[in-house]
Amino acid sequence: MNLLDGKIVSEHLLNQVSQNIQKFSKERPPHLAIIMIGNHPASETYVNAKIKTCEKYGIKGSLYHFPETISEKKLLQEIQILNEYSEIDGIIVQLPLPKHISENQVIETISPHKDVDGFHPVNIGRMSKNLTSLLPATPGGILELLKYYQIETVGKHCVVIGRSNIVGTPMSILMSRNAYPGNCTVTLCHTKTKNLDFFTKNADIIIIAAGQPELLKGNMVKEGVVVIDVGIHRVTDNTKKTGFRLTGDVEFDSVAPKCSYITPVPGGVGPMTIAVLLKNTCQVWLQKFQNQ
Amino acid sequence: MNLLDGKIVSEHLLNQVSQNIQKFSKERPPHLAIIMIGNHPASETYVNAKIKTCEKYGIKGSLYHFPETISEKKLLQEIQILNEYSEIDGIIVQLPLPKHISENQVIETISPHKDVDGFHPVNIGRMSKNLTSLLPATPGGILELLKYYQIETVGKHCVVIGRSNIVGTPMSILMSRNAYPGNCTVTLCHTKTKNLDFFTKNADIIIIAAGQPELLKGNMVKEGVVVIDVGIHRVTDNTKKTGFRLTGDVEFDSVAPKCSYITPVPGGVGPMTIAVLLKNTCQVWLQKFQNQ
Repeated sequence: MNLLDGKIVSEHLLNQVSQNIQKFSKERPPHLAIIMIGNHPASETYVNAKIKTCEKYGIKGSLYHFPETISEKKLLQEIQILNEYSEIDGIIVQLPLPKHISENQVIETISPHKDVDGFHPVNIGRMSKNLTSLLPATPGGILELLKYYQIETVGKHCVVIGRSNIVGTPMSILMSRNAYPGNCTVTLCHTKTKNLDFFTKNADIIIIAAGQPELLKGNMVKEGVVVIDVGIHRVTDNTKKTGFRLTGDVEFDSVAPKCSYITPVPGGVGPMTIAVLLKNTCQVWLQKFQNQ
Repeated sequence: MNLLDGKIVSEHLLNQVSQNIQKFSKERPPHLAIIMIGNHPASETYVNAKIKTCEKYGIKGSLYHFPETISEKKLLQEIQILNEYSEIDGIIVQLPLPKHISENQVIETISPHKDVDGFHPVNIGRMSKNLTSLLPATPGGILELLKYYQIETVGKHCVVIGRSNIVGTPMSILMSRNAYPGNCTVTLCHTKTKNLDFFTKNADIIIIAAGQPELLKGNMVKEGVVVIDVGIHRVTDNTKKTGFRLTGDVEFDSVAPKCSYITPVPGGVGPMTIAVLLKNTCQVWLQKFQNQ
């Protein structure tokens, strides 16, 4: 059993980002605009982590912080201003948003060319047609993990569990495209799936983003499977001093011994997401100079 | 075994289109612009059939016919003019295009609001996010067939064979969405799939758009399966006076006896595609009056 180490791979990816930035060190650095609404404590933590990582690798991160009471109309206008501002390469909006603001409206207002979260329909649509696009960060990060460890994917049966717009659905599309990683026969499972273990027992690669702690157990997988765990949960554990431990959607202790490769939680998919966000921002920025 | 009769269902759908048009009979009729480049004989046949069907059901169909030698730039300008012309509701481009013109560039130039073929990334992306969109015509037509015959889909294992941008890939996305028809566990198979019959034998619903005559045979499916055949091929048959017969991607004689429902070829999926094209055109037109 080998670990798919997200810390190593994200570091590798971010060093590439850094090197790309140094190539054009006479230009202004890449610039990521992060929009945050209100004072959701978890959001603040995520946003601070993003800005810190940006700075560490040579990307300027700017926080655009609006009050909880901002109207949808005003927010969309602010996004339009950022769309038109040529010195901003990437724009993301920290979710969740207050209830009076439509998430889809906000995402579709961001210019697809600056949509470094890869959530805009144009990017999802182009991805599904196997055209160049900004990939959604978590699925993009999983591709990077598979690539780094040179996991064979062509002709493999890949079972994706969970059909969210930001992980499961785009992941299933990516793994079935004619590309590497890709070219898998993909089964997309979700809450309406019957006999989940029929599919998982047949899978060569399982990517699980089900949002259920330790759903996937050892008796549900075959020997040699590759398992990618997108979940992260805090569960009660009285054997720990803190009274809790972190776990994923996979029961690691029973599944790992049967795997050829598996992601740890934490330290697997988690660090990849932010690395791809920065990679996407750098990609937009690079295009400006490469097209000159 | 029951037939999923595309003639009946397309007629039903087109009568609904007609009725919707009559509700606003004081307004101008819906208007579909069909762009054709060069003189591809098959394209001319398809285009004439589309215009005839339009007229039969109260939609104005206009042919914009350009010579084979038109430059890409000029074609894109012509599309822009049609985008801005408020009395045109839908725009389609008859494929294939001459080699010097990029199909993707052309599709992405059509306004997503007038893209009644449902090929624009915005429509594919919104579809994949389960938002309102103009559905691609063939997958949309298959949904209409399933709806009309009230085929149960929730929790079923649907195997889609073929991953083209216009049928297989969008079909797999639609069947796994949280909707009816939908909510299936979907496996997308293609040329790189190993053991295709492992998947087809387990399938409750098979949608095949593989482009290979009679690929799916009776020993590859289980009793009670629903089979939708998107293929249409002319194969040599010396027992026929004409020397050929039409067949699909399914070996009908061996598969049909095991099916609960199956589409005939011809007369199954074929007539649905054009019906959805007209339905989409009418949908765009209706929105103009409903929003007044």
